[in-house]
Amino acid sequence: MSVIESLALEGTSKIVLLVLDGLGDLPDPAHRGQTPLEAARTPNLDAVARASALGRLTPVAPGITPGSGPGHLGLFGYDPLTHLVGRGVLEALGAGIDLQHGDVAARANFCTIDASGVVTDRRAGRIGSDVCARLVGLLHTSIPRIDDVEVVLQAGKGHRFVAVLRGSGLGGAASDADPHKEGKPVPPAHALEAGERNEKTARVVNTFVKRASEVLEAEHPANAVLMRGLSERPKFAGYRERFKLRAAAIAAYPMYRGVASLAGMDLFVPPGEGAAEAFAVAAQQWASHDYIFIHVKGTDMAGEDGNFDAKVAVIEAVDQALPRLLALEPDVLCVTGDHSTPVPMRGHSWHPVPVLVHSVFCFPDPHPRFHETSCRTGSLGDLASRDLIAVLLANAGRLDKYGA
Amino acid sequence: MSVIESLALEGTSKIVLLVLDGLGDLPDPAHRGQTPLEAARTPNLDAVARASALGRLTPVAPGITPGSGPGHLGLFGYDPLTHLVGRGVLEALGAGIDLQHGDVAARANFCTIDASGVVTDRRAGRIGSDVCARLVGLLHTSIPRIDDVEVVLQAGKGHRFVAVLRGSGLGGAASDADPHKEGKPVPPAHALEAGERNEKTARVVNTFVKRASEVLEAEHPANAVLMRGLSERPKFAGYRERFKLRAAAIAAYPMYRGVASLAGMDLFVPPGEGAAEAFAVAAQQWASHDYIFIHVKGTDMAGEDGNFDAKVAVIEAVDQALPRLLALEPDVLCVTGDHSTPVPMRGHSWHPVPVLVHSVFCFPDPHPRFHETSCRTGSLGDLASRDLIAVLLANAGRLDKYGA
Repeated sequence: MSVIESLALEGTSKIVLLVLDGLGDLPDPAHRGQTPLEAARTPNLDAVARASALGRLTPVAPGITPGSGPGHLGLFGYDPLTHLVGRGVLEALGAGIDLQHGDVAARANFCTIDASGVVTDRRAGRIGSDVCARLVGLLHTSIPRIDDVEVVLQAGKGHRFVAVLRGSGLGGAASDADPHKEGKPVPPAHALEAGERNEKTARVVNTFVKRASEVLEAEHPANAVLMRGLSERPKFAGYRERFKLRAAAIAAYPMYRGVASLAGMDLFVPPGEGAAEAFAVAAQQWASHDYIFIHVKGTDMAGEDGNFDAKVAVIEAVDQALPRLLALEPDVLCVTGDHSTPVPMRGHSWHPVPVLVHSVFCFPDPHPRFHETSCRTGSLGDLASRDLIAVLLANAGRLDKYGA
Repeated sequence: MSVIESLALEGTSKIVLLVLDGLGDLPDPAHRGQTPLEAARTPNLDAVARASALGRLTPVAPGITPGSGPGHLGLFGYDPLTHLVGRGVLEALGAGIDLQHGDVAARANFCTIDASGVVTDRRAGRIGSDVCARLVGLLHTSIPRIDDVEVVLQAGKGHRFVAVLRGSGLGGAASDADPHKEGKPVPPAHALEAGERNEKTARVVNTFVKRASEVLEAEHPANAVLMRGLSERPKFAGYRERFKLRAAAIAAYPMYRGVASLAGMDLFVPPGEGAAEAFAVAAQQWASHDYIFIHVKGTDMAGEDGNFDAKVAVIEAVDQALPRLLALEPDVLCVTGDHSTPVPMRGHSWHPVPVLVHSVFCFPDPHPRFHETSCRTGSLGDLASRDLIAVLLANAGRLDKYGA
């Protein structure tokens, strides 16, 4: 048990973690050298900022650009360097599959093999998503299970799909059934660690790959499948056990609910992608939860699109909806991102993420606004994302003193 | 051996660590939004600050509120997360008991049991300290030793006292002889780790509890005792061995001398609680020591009392006495706290603590004053308390280069 866990107290105070995905950004010369947070009109957030402690979060480690999984695990208080989630599991969570303990997940895709079984196109001629959906349906009907193992499939974009093996005694340490280059046959999966569980997984994977090629024989160019990133749903101690918090996750996208499910949070789908819809769900869940994680995706999408104005618009929409959240009077309100997604980079980055913590005892900063630069000199200082939960618990009066 | 220890050099330079207990605070709306450090008139400290490096210390980890033991161990260069001191030991140190290596200490108190041995009041009707002192005397006379183990007792406030077991072959890993709730009998202590040493401790504790209830039979409501937090005095490498420093601790309160004794410091009791008295002792010990830790308690007490003006007054009194300390011309002067004790919180807190380091080579900051906000942007940056000792040794010219 960590020190934080040993000090966590039961309580009645409420914590809200509002994550604007990919919030952090860079100054844009085309926009008066401002970041989207600086350019946005945010009167409500400004008012909160003036009574808040500001700072910056480093999601994984300096210079490390996190994916969505590690980014959120850090914010939730699970060190992403020690709480590992396999690629297959993240893919399955992102596809909205309700992973159960013991499930083994894989990233999978259709490919083309020749008569001798050599892979000639790892992406099956980039078939459309409609074709993918039809073929996944065909596989599902033809191979619903292998021995005592249920095979759960979900079509993705283009040639991609997710495969989940559900049954007893499966291990996550099995190698890829994927040559990772063309001109070679599909290698059979094998156990990467000793143990019957991993051997069983490898056997099931190899059977699935073989039977799929039989089912798909007439479906050239999508006449075979590849599987990689095999991994077991990790078993992490959850929020209730670790932090004595009844936690809710409100997120429109399945990936974020999925990562929250690893932390044992109750999951809620808002009726729309906007902050207002999410805040309405927060109000409904207020009485039954102590900690509410709210995920807003739009900031990250705008960053990925390189669309400055769209990112500003999402931030302003969150600001306009903010009074609905503030009306709930959370004891601790934290606004931050899981990582930066700077508009000029059109992707995730390693830059520290602005964070705001509001509570009665937060040490309010004199800064009039919340953005990348004001956060640099805030009273929270620079923190590792994994340490945020301790600061939130402390501000909520939910951490006992360490030592006498 | 740590890197710091391997690099520590012998020298003639002098380091002073002046700890104003619970120094850090929060802005108080009732006092123009200032903290006590901001509100205090401190011309002498200001003059030092203008030639000093400022920064902030995190005592244990972000969000963690430290007790006095962990708070000071960090300042002394002992990571409080790995240098554990049991509750019983801290209590004994705080009571001024000169703990020796091998001693096992416990927090103890009088309680009420009924005829069947069930605890009916864990606090023995909250007897007064005078009754406690009389009963501790009675126990001392009646049970001076158990087999080859000496029993050292010291009365505390109300129903509380400290018990130290002194003898060979005693271990600190024994469970509480305390049901922690009423309506149950006193459970016998048992070894928490295998080993005859811990079993011996458990036997002695159980004998003491049994004999105490016989001695106290007619003393209802204080007719039995409870013991908890059993722990062994830890054996840490001391300052001379680790840092090549002859260290002195000057503290009016036994707790702080006790923690300093764990670091092998020579202990001195000033003739009063004020900084002036402590600085006079520093002058006396100047020639014979390289490092002098001076503890001022008043700031913490004022914070615990929620008394802004009292905290300001203690800071101003330290400032007025400061020229006596400066006249000794320490090569390195550090002023800081072991944790924050914000007036509005009336207790210890997790907030980072302002720190000032003055030396010829400290990189002086432009800030005209020393307080929570100026320290946020100081040249020392944000440090873990456990790293302070390296910065002090470096400024004292007492750390060799690392690598060629």
